[in-house]
Amino acid sequence: MHTIINPDTGHHASERETGHVIQTLSGHPLFAVLPAQDLAQLAEKSQIHTAHKDQVIFLQDEDAHRVYFIKSGWVKLFRETPEGDEAVIDVISSGYLFGETAVFNDKKYPYSAQMTEAGSYISIPLLGFEHLMLTSPHFSREMMRVMAKFRRHQDQELEHRTLQNTAQRIGCFILRLCKPDMKGPQFIELPYDKTLIAAKLGMQPETFSRGLSRLREDTPIKIQGSIVEVPDVLTLQHYCCHLCSHTYPCKDLI
Amino acid sequence: MHTIINPDTGHHASERETGHVIQTLSGHPLFAVLPAQDLAQLAEKSQIHTAHKDQVIFLQDEDAHRVYFIKSGWVKLFRETPEGDEAVIDVISSGYLFGETAVFNDKKYPYSAQMTEAGSYISIPLLGFEHLMLTSPHFSREMMRVMAKFRRHQDQELEHRTLQNTAQRIGCFILRLCKPDMKGPQFIELPYDKTLIAAKLGMQPETFSRGLSRLREDTPIKIQGSIVEVPDVLTLQHYCCHLCSHTYPCKDLI
Repeated sequence: MHTIINPDTGHHASERETGHVIQTLSGHPLFAVLPAQDLAQLAEKSQIHTAHKDQVIFLQDEDAHRVYFIKSGWVKLFRETPEGDEAVIDVISSGYLFGETAVFNDKKYPYSAQMTEAGSYISIPLLGFEHLMLTSPHFSREMMRVMAKFRRHQDQELEHRTLQNTAQRIGCFILRLCKPDMKGPQFIELPYDKTLIAAKLGMQPETFSRGLSRLREDTPIKIQGSIVEVPDVLTLQHYCCHLCSHTYPCKDLI
Repeated sequence: MHTIINPDTGHHASERETGHVIQTLSGHPLFAVLPAQDLAQLAEKSQIHTAHKDQVIFLQDEDAHRVYFIKSGWVKLFRETPEGDEAVIDVISSGYLFGETAVFNDKKYPYSAQMTEAGSYISIPLLGFEHLMLTSPHFSREMMRVMAKFRRHQDQELEHRTLQNTAQRIGCFILRLCKPDMKGPQFIELPYDKTLIAAKLGMQPETFSRGLSRLREDTPIKIQGSIVEVPDVLTLQHYCCHLCSHTYPCKDLI
């Protein structure tokens, strides 16, 4: 098969791989606005990686050379304190970009990134990504849209930590996984383990456990292992959302 | 005096006022990258406003026509829940932009904005601002830089709410007002009243009071009215920063 040598990495990207990268990236609004030629050029220098559970993709403060796009699996973004405590910034999955803010952070990653389960991702050269930001107004506009959406999401998270109790915040996490228009019971699978959900919500494991118990007492929700039964989405919505300034469903804020 | 009629507002902007706007805005990195002609054009359509304490500048979900830049005073950005609880998103002062994310929020303000003391601000037409985003790569790059900085600030805030106790978070608020390199005692004036500081930190007033008492017990800090005496910045730094993943001084994150 004909191969293209990637000048940035020495990696041989096959035409088939490049085609796959183009197809995957073009599903994201950020890359969908690019002219075909620009996207192809970026894709040629990009790589698809498979990763095992717990694999570290990069570490906080490392020099940044690549921007990442998740194809499958979950990625934990986190920072560490001098005492070794871990602060989870986010847990993200397929269709999400990460590492891109290094462009504005002296080309260093502002957090560490680690797979929380096996998966795959695309890595894109940071310089090529930055070049598009500077030369394509449509690309930079979409980039700003992504950043603004993330800011609303963070504003909401900060608001919840002020106004909601832990049971309501766990309820909100579950509510976002529900189908908002479905009548009757729904069965939801938790996307990752409870320790990580606690960390994402900024709770100590014991606080999370107490919150979960209270949620079970206050609402008809049932939880067995990683499966949550939500008998009625409206009840859960009423329980969580009356203390939130946003209107349900607010999936676009995830 | 010769005046220019502002086509957007019917407001008569004097040449002197326009000159003043140009001078103020060009002090901000976002506007400093603009060619003189673009900045002048934007300034002609902008207005300087004076505002009294508690004046509402705009309300959450209102149609957005202007973007705002604070000249003096403090502005509270907040959202309200259906139950009437207020979630303070931020309290910002001179040199800060607000309302600009309406560009990415269906041209509606994502929060309310209110002066917390008398002050002044510049209002800029949203359409002119958006036009620059789409046509000036330098302007949009600076805009992204501002947004990325804000994101790091929010990441840090979320981290603090997870890892620090209330006394440490209040200590961190005071630490950011200190001169980091100054040896010996420093006297700091709190920038706004304690109720608002509590709200900005996402604390109930009684939680804030308890945190403040604990901060006084744990450190040699003295507080009298709005004046805080910090006998030694290093002691305070040690008290707060060992539970934070950022390196002091982190003023750029404010």
